[in-house]
Formats: sequence, C-alpha cells, structure tokens
Amino acid sequence: MKSFISHLECPKCNSVYDSDQINQLCVCGAPLLVRYDLRKARVQWSRNELSTRGKTLWRYREILPVCGEENIVSLGEGMTPLLRLERLGTETGLRNLYLKDEGVIPTGTFKARGAAVGVSKAKELGVKEFGMPTNGNAGSAWALYAAKAGIKANIVMPKGAPFITKIECAVSGANLRLVNGLISDAGKIVGRGVAKYGWYDASTLKEPYRIEGKKTMGLEITEQFDWKVPDVILYPTGGGVGIIGIYKALLELREMGWIGEKLPRLVAVQSAGCAPIVRAWQEGRVDSEFWTDGKTVAFGILVPKAFGDFLVLEAVYKTNGCAIAVEDADILKSQAQIAASEGAFICPEGAALLAAVLKLKEQGWVSPEERIVLLNTGCGVKYPDTVTLDVPTLEPESEL
Amino acid sequence: MKSFISHLECPKCNSVYDSDQINQLCVCGAPLLVRYDLRKARVQWSRNELSTRGKTLWRYREILPVCGEENIVSLGEGMTPLLRLERLGTETGLRNLYLKDEGVIPTGTFKARGAAVGVSKAKELGVKEFGMPTNGNAGSAWALYAAKAGIKANIVMPKGAPFITKIECAVSGANLRLVNGLISDAGKIVGRGVAKYGWYDASTLKEPYRIEGKKTMGLEITEQFDWKVPDVILYPTGGGVGIIGIYKALLELREMGWIGEKLPRLVAVQSAGCAPIVRAWQEGRVDSEFWTDGKTVAFGILVPKAFGDFLVLEAVYKTNGCAIAVEDADILKSQAQIAASEGAFICPEGAALLAAVLKLKEQGWVSPEERIVLLNTGCGVKYPDTVTLDVPTLEPESEL
Repeated sequence: MKSFISHLECPKCNSVYDSDQINQLCVCGAPLLVRYDLRKARVQWSRNELSTRGKTLWRYREILPVCGEENIVSLGEGMTPLLRLERLGTETGLRNLYLKDEGVIPTGTFKARGAAVGVSKAKELGVKEFGMPTNGNAGSAWALYAAKAGIKANIVMPKGAPFITKIECAVSGANLRLVNGLISDAGKIVGRGVAKYGWYDASTLKEPYRIEGKKTMGLEITEQFDWKVPDVILYPTGGGVGIIGIYKALLELREMGWIGEKLPRLVAVQSAGCAPIVRAWQEGRVDSEFWTDGKTVAFGILVPKAFGDFLVLEAVYKTNGCAIAVEDADILKSQAQIAASEGAFICPEGAALLAAVLKLKEQGWVSPEERIVLLNTGCGVKYPDTVTLDVPTLEPESEL
Repeated sequence: MKSFISHLECPKCNSVYDSDQINQLCVCGAPLLVRYDLRKARVQWSRNELSTRGKTLWRYREILPVCGEENIVSLGEGMTPLLRLERLGTETGLRNLYLKDEGVIPTGTFKARGAAVGVSKAKELGVKEFGMPTNGNAGSAWALYAAKAGIKANIVMPKGAPFITKIECAVSGANLRLVNGLISDAGKIVGRGVAKYGWYDASTLKEPYRIEGKKTMGLEITEQFDWKVPDVILYPTGGGVGIIGIYKALLELREMGWIGEKLPRLVAVQSAGCAPIVRAWQEGRVDSEFWTDGKTVAFGILVPKAFGDFLVLEAVYKTNGCAIAVEDADILKSQAQIAASEGAFICPEGAALLAAVLKLKEQGWVSPEERIVLLNTGCGVKYPDTVTLDVPTLEPESEL
C-alpha cells in the first residue's frame, strides 16, 4: 500500500506547494488542498482490493496523505454504520432514507476523522507541538489523537463550549485554556501562540490534511452503496469541512473511474439562528457574510463565517444541491423522533437534517423514492442538555 | 445464512427448553443458556466465510439465536477496535498489551451487544412489551434498541444512576421510572410489573439471549487475532455477563475446531469497594456472597451479588484465570494514564483493568511478553464526573 499524494494546491490562485514540508495557508490566504496522482491511481489501484482490508478509514490509504505506515495514529476510526431508516421512512413518506452515523467512532464525532489524518500527517512532518482554537469536539478529538502520537496540544476553547468536550481535552493531558469569549477570541490567542512559539497551526483549514480525513465519509458512503452514489446527501454545516471533503471525495472517485458522472446533490443544513451559507446561497453569492449574534442549540454549527465558505458553496452549486435553515424547535423535535423511531440518539446538528429533509419534501425538492443520506456528525450523549428529563421517582414499595 | 440454534439448557440441572417459545428462568431458578448444533456448524460453516461479511456482530449469525433476517434489530453494533497499546506497553513493560474498545459502539457501551441480540430475539418471539431494572447503561441500550424494534420498554433505574443513561432512556420514548433506592429495589418493582401485566422480563440473565450478544466480544477478539487466542483477557466484572459470554464463545469456537485446546486465562476485575467475586475466588468457592455497603466510582461494576456468579467463577477456574480487586484511586489514575498515553478516554470500569494488570505483573502472574487484552466496556464521555476539570479561563487579549 502506498499513497499517491503528489502536492498541495491552492483552490483560489492555483499555486502549488510541497506536501513533504509543513505548509499551512497559501500566500494568497486561502486554504490548501491535497492533490494525488489520480491517473496513476486509476491504473495501479482497484476498488476490488478494498474487500479484504481493515474496517477503518485507512482502507483508502492510496488517496490519503500519509506516506509511512509507522506514522499512522489510529484509534480504530471509520467505516461507521450506514443505517436504513425504515420506520422513519414510513412515518415521513421518504422510503429510502439512510443515516450515516458518525456517533459510532472514537471520541463520538466525525471530528475523529480529521484528527486521525491530520495528527498522523503532522507526526510524519515532524510536528512536536500545535495550537488549536475549537468550539469543542474538534479540540477533544485532536487532543486525544495528539496524546496517542506523543505530540503536545495547546487547545483554547470558549468558556461556553460543551462541558464534556472540555473533560476530554483535560483527560488527554493537553494544555487546555478556556476563554471568556467566542471561538474567534480563542483563534486570536492561538494565533499569538503560533507566532510566539512557532507551533504548528491546527486551526480549521489552516492545515490541509483534516479535509482528507473527512473526505473518507464520502468514500465510505459510496462504498457502502456498492459504488452507486445516493441521490442526496444532507450535511449539518458549520465550518463545512465535511461537505468540502465529501465533494472532494466524489470528484476523486469520478476521476479514478470508480463512479459515473452523476453526483449526489449536496445539501448544506444550518440553523435559522446562524445561517450565513444559506443566505449566501439564496442570494446566489460565491462566499458568505459574517452572521452577527448567531445562536442555536446545535453548538457545532454555530459558525458565523466559515473560512472555507467558498468551497462549501462550490460543492452545493456544482452538484445542484441547496442550502436550507431549520428552527431550533424543529431540531429538538427531530432529535426525539429519530431516537423514538430508530433508536439512534444523535446530536442536535445531525437531528437538524431530519427537520431539513421534511421541509425539502414539502417543497418537492426531494421525491419519495430518492435515496437520501442524513450525515449525522456525532452522538447525542455528548450533549445531554438537549433532552429534558422529566420522570417520576418512585419509592421502593411502589407499583407500576 | 442460518442459525444453528438448537435449544435452551440449564447449566445447573441440565433441563432443556424450547428456544422457539418464551422461556425465562429454569424451573430450578437458574439462568438458561442457548445451545447450538455445533457439530453441524463445524461441517457446514467455515471461518473463511467471514472475510466478506459486514462489520457487525451479525457476521456470526450461525451461532446467534435469531433465525429470521427480518427480526434483526441493528444499529451497526460490533467489530469494535482492538488497539495495540504501544506507549503503555513501553511505560508498563508489558510489550503485548491490547485494548478491545467497546466505547466505539452504538450507545457507547458493550451493553449494545446484549440489547441488539436480546431485543432481536424478543421481537422474533413476539414480545410487545418488557420490563427491566438497570443501573444505567443496559437500560439505555435496551430502551433504544426497543424503540427501533417498536417494542414498549418499561425501565426502572436508581435515582443515583449516571445522568446520561437516564437521558438516553428518556429520549427513546421508554416508560422510565426512577426509584429512591438501589437496583435491587428497581428489580422488585419490575418484578411486580411483570407479574401484573405479563411483560417479558428483561432483567439480567432472566432472558437467555443477551449472553449471546456479549459472547461476540470473545468471537471478535479471537478473529481479530487471526484465530490465535491471546494469553490473558481482563474483564471488569459486575453482573459478569460479559465474561460468561466470552467463555461460552471460546468453548463454542473450540468445539467447532476454529481454535485449539488452549484458552486465554480469564481475569475478573472488581473494585475493592465491592468485590464479591474476588472474595469467593480467594476462598475457592463456586458462588459468591452478598457484599454489603458496596461503593465504587465504577458504577457499572457495583453489583453486590451477581445472579450468574457461579458461571463467572466457573469461567475463571476453568481457564486458570484469577479474580482481583483494585482501589478507586488507582482506577482514576489509570483512566488518566490511558487517555494521556493512548488517546483513549475510557470508562472507569475499563480503566480498572490497567490498575489490575499492573498488580498482576508485580505479582508475576502475567509476564512481559504475554498477549494481554483489556476489555474496556464503554466510553468515558458517559461518566464526565470521573474527570476533574481545573483549567484557567483567559480574557480575549491574553497571551499563552
């Protein structure tokens, strides 16, 4: 097994960079994307080889950026369940509804994919210490994978971030700091640390490799459907790295000839309380504007302006997808409905997708027979506050 | 694919029962075990067939009790990671130390296995409603799988059970009640409900099928080691269904000729604050005595007297294993060490195993080169209270 990695490329100005050296952003300020020699991959690699490989995302080694086996830092991430939602299908009239469940992964969210590949590549590049601002789950995933890699992590998180993600960072032995402010404040503190100490900057999209981890969601969905892509994939969009990654995966699969021309329509789902991508899409713009005073119960998609917004919007436009916002009340209702009908207790970000697909069905944007994937980004247990506990306490001698 | 299930059998008095009918306990009061036609399985089934099967515990369909494909209730459980602990190996001088990580499974604990198989078989038997007392994780797993199956769950849990497990039951739509008492009080309330309403009794070992789910941990470990069993498996023992199941799996594999004569030594690990199995083993007894005023940070192994204690002790004796207790302080220290060295934030029950294996090494009971598996039963995020969060909060203009 080998990687067909070739170089790094700027999607804005097309500058190229060496992938054997530490490179963060392009000189033009845009994030860098990893490029592979896909023509060679097409000839030398076959999807049939996958059948005997391990059930982790490393089964796609050839189009992942890590070259040396010894640099792989793995907790067993990937090949998460793709569940057919039969009962919800009956309830909603969407007969081919699926849940890709990223709650069943180390650290409980899809952030594990970005961390596994990002930390592994950092190790390969000789990184000893990094800095990272986070709203929670990315920080906990990077902190834990860094612990396994023996890399020192400096994590800064808003005071208001979910409690459990702070606990995960703390137990990993990372250097964790809270900030009396937003993730943007955390970002500035980390930025000063990077400048002062020369740390690797592991901020979202400031290193090119987490996208490669997240693209494996697109690879897996396609493989799990036996290389017949679904019609629609809905994705809860904050920073949007997942949807960027899934789109990148689809393009690479197409270039290798593993799938046909037709791509799934990609749908960016946001909360009505913070929907900069949706607004941009409604206005036909190629990038988004800062959303002031954002607020939503789905903390993971509370991102007022995504650094990679132009890439998210490109994925939506190019696949004839759309962007849609849903209310918090509908998110919580959907979370309860998915648990009660399908036994899956998922995070509010993932639950937003059910609310969204119901709206899209009403609008006729999806049809009853289409194969639709809801990409749930994490498990519900990391957000216990989203569920109200209101049950009676009995005495030992009570009857039911 | 078909199941080679043959009948139910009492391990105490050897009475046999029909597995196509609802049967709970033997008339003698002992739990029933599922038996298969393993001679036929040996001839008609081969382990080579597994290589192309899905990554869930249902890959072992032939020696699971569910007959009809349509009765399988699955959230994608099983084939959890088996991680080599290289850094901990270096730190501890145990060079072949592994973690079987049951935190990476729907609902976040190994209870998902018992629930998946138990609920599926209940569905096959026509069960519409069940009652269940629980200390937390089993209840949440059964509640969520029951939701998917469309079976009504009545769950009773001590008021003091972990908060997140209550949330999971609540969101599943189960009929959840707390009790101002212990799990034994919950059990009595459920018992009265079973008598009054004719519910299926899903109490631990009062239905014969959850063991079958849990035995898949033993099947997977063996398959993941390419059918060469490890030398030692450590298991955090409360009710002990997991260790009973793993032992049963090993016997069945041996009978089918998939492994040789030699079995791993099975080690029952308990907390010093509640160690009835350890005391029984030290005294060479075949069953345990009720442990009064038990107390431990590892709530999942706080079981004063396991209903299947005699089966746990049999598994330990027959494999030349042992039983060992560890202090809560060492459990918490181990939890932090595993996270900081290996990036795995595991539950306190699982962490107890590291504390135990260090003691066993000191005693010379395990040797540095032996292949040792720590069976971690769940993820750490369901027990956030076990980690102390003591980090500074910065102001936005701060420096690191």
